[in-house]
Amino acid sequence: MIKQDLDYVFHARSIAISGVSTKGVMSWIGGQVYLNSILNCGFKGNIYPVNPKGGEIFGLKVYANIKDIPEPVDYVISCAPVSSAVELVKDCIDKKVKVVHFFTSGFSETGTLEGRQLEQEISSLVRRNGMRLIGPNCLGVYCPSTGLSFAPDFVNESGPVALIGQSGGNCTYVIRQGMKKGIRFSKVISYGNACDVDEGDLLEYLAHDEDTKVILAYIEGVKDGRRFGQLLKETNRVKPVVVLKGGVAEAGARAVASHTGALAGSDEVWDGLLRQAGAIRVHSLEELVDMAVTFTYLPLPLGRRAAVLGFGGGVTVLASDDCTEAGLEIPDSPVEVQDKLKSHLRGAVIGVSLNNPVDLSAEGLYPDVLYNCGRTLIDSDNVDLLLVHLALDTMLVPFFMAETKIRLPIQEPEGGRNNPLNSITKIHEDSGKPMAIVMGSVVFAESYQIMLDCQQLFCEAGLPVYQSLSSAATAIARFMDYHRYRAEILETS
Amino acid sequence: MIKQDLDYVFHARSIAISGVSTKGVMSWIGGQVYLNSILNCGFKGNIYPVNPKGGEIFGLKVYANIKDIPEPVDYVISCAPVSSAVELVKDCIDKKVKVVHFFTSGFSETGTLEGRQLEQEISSLVRRNGMRLIGPNCLGVYCPSTGLSFAPDFVNESGPVALIGQSGGNCTYVIRQGMKKGIRFSKVISYGNACDVDEGDLLEYLAHDEDTKVILAYIEGVKDGRRFGQLLKETNRVKPVVVLKGGVAEAGARAVASHTGALAGSDEVWDGLLRQAGAIRVHSLEELVDMAVTFTYLPLPLGRRAAVLGFGGGVTVLASDDCTEAGLEIPDSPVEVQDKLKSHLRGAVIGVSLNNPVDLSAEGLYPDVLYNCGRTLIDSDNVDLLLVHLALDTMLVPFFMAETKIRLPIQEPEGGRNNPLNSITKIHEDSGKPMAIVMGSVVFAESYQIMLDCQQLFCEAGLPVYQSLSSAATAIARFMDYHRYRAEILETS
Repeated sequence: MIKQDLDYVFHARSIAISGVSTKGVMSWIGGQVYLNSILNCGFKGNIYPVNPKGGEIFGLKVYANIKDIPEPVDYVISCAPVSSAVELVKDCIDKKVKVVHFFTSGFSETGTLEGRQLEQEISSLVRRNGMRLIGPNCLGVYCPSTGLSFAPDFVNESGPVALIGQSGGNCTYVIRQGMKKGIRFSKVISYGNACDVDEGDLLEYLAHDEDTKVILAYIEGVKDGRRFGQLLKETNRVKPVVVLKGGVAEAGARAVASHTGALAGSDEVWDGLLRQAGAIRVHSLEELVDMAVTFTYLPLPLGRRAAVLGFGGGVTVLASDDCTEAGLEIPDSPVEVQDKLKSHLRGAVIGVSLNNPVDLSAEGLYPDVLYNCGRTLIDSDNVDLLLVHLALDTMLVPFFMAETKIRLPIQEPEGGRNNPLNSITKIHEDSGKPMAIVMGSVVFAESYQIMLDCQQLFCEAGLPVYQSLSSAATAIARFMDYHRYRAEILETS
Repeated sequence: MIKQDLDYVFHARSIAISGVSTKGVMSWIGGQVYLNSILNCGFKGNIYPVNPKGGEIFGLKVYANIKDIPEPVDYVISCAPVSSAVELVKDCIDKKVKVVHFFTSGFSETGTLEGRQLEQEISSLVRRNGMRLIGPNCLGVYCPSTGLSFAPDFVNESGPVALIGQSGGNCTYVIRQGMKKGIRFSKVISYGNACDVDEGDLLEYLAHDEDTKVILAYIEGVKDGRRFGQLLKETNRVKPVVVLKGGVAEAGARAVASHTGALAGSDEVWDGLLRQAGAIRVHSLEELVDMAVTFTYLPLPLGRRAAVLGFGGGVTVLASDDCTEAGLEIPDSPVEVQDKLKSHLRGAVIGVSLNNPVDLSAEGLYPDVLYNCGRTLIDSDNVDLLLVHLALDTMLVPFFMAETKIRLPIQEPEGGRNNPLNSITKIHEDSGKPMAIVMGSVVFAESYQIMLDCQQLFCEAGLPVYQSLSSAATAIARFMDYHRYRAEILETS
């Protein structure tokens, strides 16, 4: 029943946007953003802007009222003032709208009696009339397969990651950062005050959604902890759920109350709930993205023994500390492996370290040295995965200034067969073992652009990319913890 | 005595660079980089490139040997092959050189008997002859006041921060990241294997150096732990020493051995040593930079009660959690303060949160609202410092795409009196209390550039800038811990 209900959230055939301003200083906030966003995301159905003043925008007729629209409307996005909320809901009911999403805020999150009563009124109206409501006080839905979106820059390509979140800003950041790291989304729902559709409904829907393989969640508070815990446990048996809990400190909980009107709950309670449900708990938005990257790109390593291949002594020392701290092992390289690595070097062995963690120093700039050493390392019997570490701005001459500056293979003759970046993707192609890239230590704007370009190249080659050794190792260790949990659960059931 | 010795390290009147290649694939590595670097940094004395092949580079005559140089030479940088190291040292002694720095590697860090013996030989040669040696296997010295430098992009402006480090790459990164955040250095020494001048000598010198107000250290291992601990304790009474210890995990210690040939020592021993000496321990290069930023820009707050002023609900929730976790308090705003904040708003109060942590949402785009709310918050009796949080890519429309995109005041008419960024710097000018800026959540290259531009604006206004609330709060809490430690020490002595 829930599935049937919520299907309209993601498969609307027509959308009306109430409160589209055609002029004014802040007209680009609100309605126009939604209009731009669904147009850019390729929404195929009819689109109806609504504003009492009428007029035209982007060549579309603006209707004065939902009820004036001649065709049926499945989905309504409200950017209209809160004072007109009840009337809008009533109009939607008359119009037989399936789902209404309130971007509009000014409800229970204000902490006032009026706000709470108003929210109560619209939620009981929709419930009595079989309509569903997203929000209020939220950004709503991004579903690239059907063209729903809430920001004009979101790509219209789908993927296996779902995201639910009680903060539109946080969802926006995760989507954008994810996009750059090769993450594509099945469904994203920013659901705000959750007066009707809540985290439980969404989790249940996504658990059964075949397009979704991993679920990310930014949660500020839940209405029914027991139900949520149970759903989380069931979902985790089928697909991983990664949870960032906002509002764990007292001041954070206070912020939650005035943000979405939710009860935050104590950190201890949440820790127990998430642990019992086998959910993966993370502590920042960056870590949420890292888990999406890991589940999307990393095959399951057979063990936690990582080889690190880096360029530069000091960064490699810190990399080893970070990996160990995060729960991976960095085993000694056997003498045979070190000898083989040595045989691959072109110049002097001076300045390089051949025991794991391996520091190739400037020798790594030779594409064949890089490829051969990488293969030798990843193919070692005591290595389960390889981490390649590119610390961009630690070299004497920043990479973008150096003669050997990082150029994408595509910018070179013959597709850059002799480009060191190609050596890295080729190790990945030729070896059967899991591999990940770390690109960090960026200072200059030019290096940031190089990092984004390389990131894209590596994502296209199917490689996970992280910002630091510490974040890579943390994400990979959590990924392995989840798989161990799931294997144990399936064994005992 | 040590002071006298090491003065030549920073105040050389003439420099010879041995091993400057004028051609070859890798000629830009090594000698040429040093030549470029000291020229760019404005070294005023004579510069003598040295290479057995002779010739000319950048209009300078290349000498075949140090001894051929007609004038006296104070300082020699060796980029020559390790095989000629002993001969070079003997030549330097004949030439009465005061300090020789070996960029050249291939000594004890190779782990071979020959490497250790060679290092032993050159160190006893310099000792017997009253010369000093930096390294080997290191990048050497950056001293902007006299024009010494090891990377061509380092600024030639001095400041109060000194840095010593056993990794040139790590030092390079800290200098570059610091430069962008308004940090200027008095002296930086990358000292590698430390066969002569070591961490103890450098610490002692910098403790008495009037140009240095705070010392950063990246340490892999020390030769004399007792002496280092004692020096650290004495130095910390006068000026803060911030220490990042590399090689705390087993694999990290292994990496240390092949990086600088040092004995890493256990994490527990180091924790005890640093605690007893009152040093500030950090765990990443970013945290080293954050401490430099804090000691350079932040006046000492009277207490740990922080007000957070942000734009966006979810980011503000997480900000509060992060601050609390790191050891700052986020006190409730009294009703009077909330009422006053409310009176400053221009539009509706919907979507904003007026209790600390304060979320101004889009209202913060009005410069007067931002200024007035910021002043009200920072002037509150229960607030010791204000943290302003700009999360760049969490807005519906990324800032660089929006009509209200972040423009520097200088790019606007009348110096941008009505620019929100000006409101932030004006709160700082007009209020007597400490204040810091957090700029994070960057995704796009355009946003990275905006972030750098804003960072520069804030640095010029004397404001500390951090990448996340978590890193800001961590650095500020450590800063306050140090001041408390020092006050206690001074009281009991």
